[in-house]
Amino acid sequence: MSIELRNDERIDQLMQYNLEIIQSPSVFSFSLDAVLLGNFARVPHHNRAHVVDLCSGNGVVALMLSQQTQSQVQAVELQDRLADMAERSIQLNGLTDQIQMIHADVKQATEYIRKDSVDVITCNPPYFTVTESSRKNPNSHLAIARHELHLTLEQLMQTSAGLLKTRGKAFFVHRPERFLEIMETMKAVDLAPKRIRFVHPKAGREANMLLIEGIKQGKPDGLKILPPLVVFDDDGHYLPEVKRMIYGDK
Amino acid sequence: MSIELRNDERIDQLMQYNLEIIQSPSVFSFSLDAVLLGNFARVPHHNRAHVVDLCSGNGVVALMLSQQTQSQVQAVELQDRLADMAERSIQLNGLTDQIQMIHADVKQATEYIRKDSVDVITCNPPYFTVTESSRKNPNSHLAIARHELHLTLEQLMQTSAGLLKTRGKAFFVHRPERFLEIMETMKAVDLAPKRIRFVHPKAGREANMLLIEGIKQGKPDGLKILPPLVVFDDDGHYLPEVKRMIYGDK
Repeated sequence: MSIELRNDERIDQLMQYNLEIIQSPSVFSFSLDAVLLGNFARVPHHNRAHVVDLCSGNGVVALMLSQQTQSQVQAVELQDRLADMAERSIQLNGLTDQIQMIHADVKQATEYIRKDSVDVITCNPPYFTVTESSRKNPNSHLAIARHELHLTLEQLMQTSAGLLKTRGKAFFVHRPERFLEIMETMKAVDLAPKRIRFVHPKAGREANMLLIEGIKQGKPDGLKILPPLVVFDDDGHYLPEVKRMIYGDK
Repeated sequence: MSIELRNDERIDQLMQYNLEIIQSPSVFSFSLDAVLLGNFARVPHHNRAHVVDLCSGNGVVALMLSQQTQSQVQAVELQDRLADMAERSIQLNGLTDQIQMIHADVKQATEYIRKDSVDVITCNPPYFTVTESSRKNPNSHLAIARHELHLTLEQLMQTSAGLLKTRGKAFFVHRPERFLEIMETMKAVDLAPKRIRFVHPKAGREANMLLIEGIKQGKPDGLKILPPLVVFDDDGHYLPEVKRMIYGDK
């Protein structure tokens, strides 16, 4: 299939799943965060689940999820430039029957997706609160993807809890420095944290990412802290677990 | 110095600090948890701090702290049998000038220690909520040390926050399955979590302990997730970091 590439776009490969993904360094490139989230999320293999990826960016997480389930995947992205890249990546991988791109504000997601209907939500949200510099350039694609200009943690949790059915699961990747807020905002919308995995850049270093699974109206006990994920060895090479996530078992 | 040993008591060594500690398998033996807490806590080296160990058991954490500071250490323990063991261990190590044993209920600690006066608190509290079996044997030494028969998490946090001065630090060891409750009870008394270290029995296994540092009236941001601590290698031998905590660098 021939897909038009625009400006500085290029096609990158995610070899674990044989996926080809359109990227643009000036607009948005998927990062390790998205790959970790796509691997951390657990989706039913069958075709009867309703799976939604919020803040979908160029669609990499939605594309990864589609390879783990036969169910429909919906992906919500606010920025038209990114939604358009995602749309073309979906075509490029022949997945237009399985993945539906919704070009919309996550806060308005319930206008497109029925409340209390979703089995699995994933989200790699903007990590940073709004700062002077993000305010100075409020329309930059990167500023919107990274800073909470259009979606706060609280709004994300409200939307997620609203979309999920009872016992539906949400999977997020975020930053440890916002961990307490994440716990509190989840509790406020009755998303019970069930599994947390901290990601450390190297052995002996503090965590710089966290992966968290919450269950809508789940019991508040039984939280599990999974084995840590360490990304690089001392020489800066990916450790085997991460290598497998990117390159597969080949 | 000759110290009387009672019943099945024996003297164990904590070689990192050249300490000798009276233990009794039927009453209470210090565990790895206490050793980890004694190493995780940070006390000023000088002699002007006020250091308090709550739920002190046979005094092992207080004894460890005394080797890291020139300041006075007070240790609070409810059970007379344990407070007595601790007292004799303090004598055995020649530390009666530095460590004061307070045989009292932690909930009444402010009758013995002035409010808002403490720089550093440590506590290895009862981990488990009260169950059928702990109720059946409510006077057993082990039941009291392990189950919240006399001190709940909430009471512990209230007492700790009451004793600490502003910006004073509390260090706890506890279980990951109660992590959410720990966060909530700390927040309720304005103890801001600052550093958390999860302890995994082996690489690739879920955490079974956590170490947490809170600061009274600290800012709620800047939480750090420290590198994980893994206790055993695949063959069940202590890994080097833990070995050093127990045996020292020898």
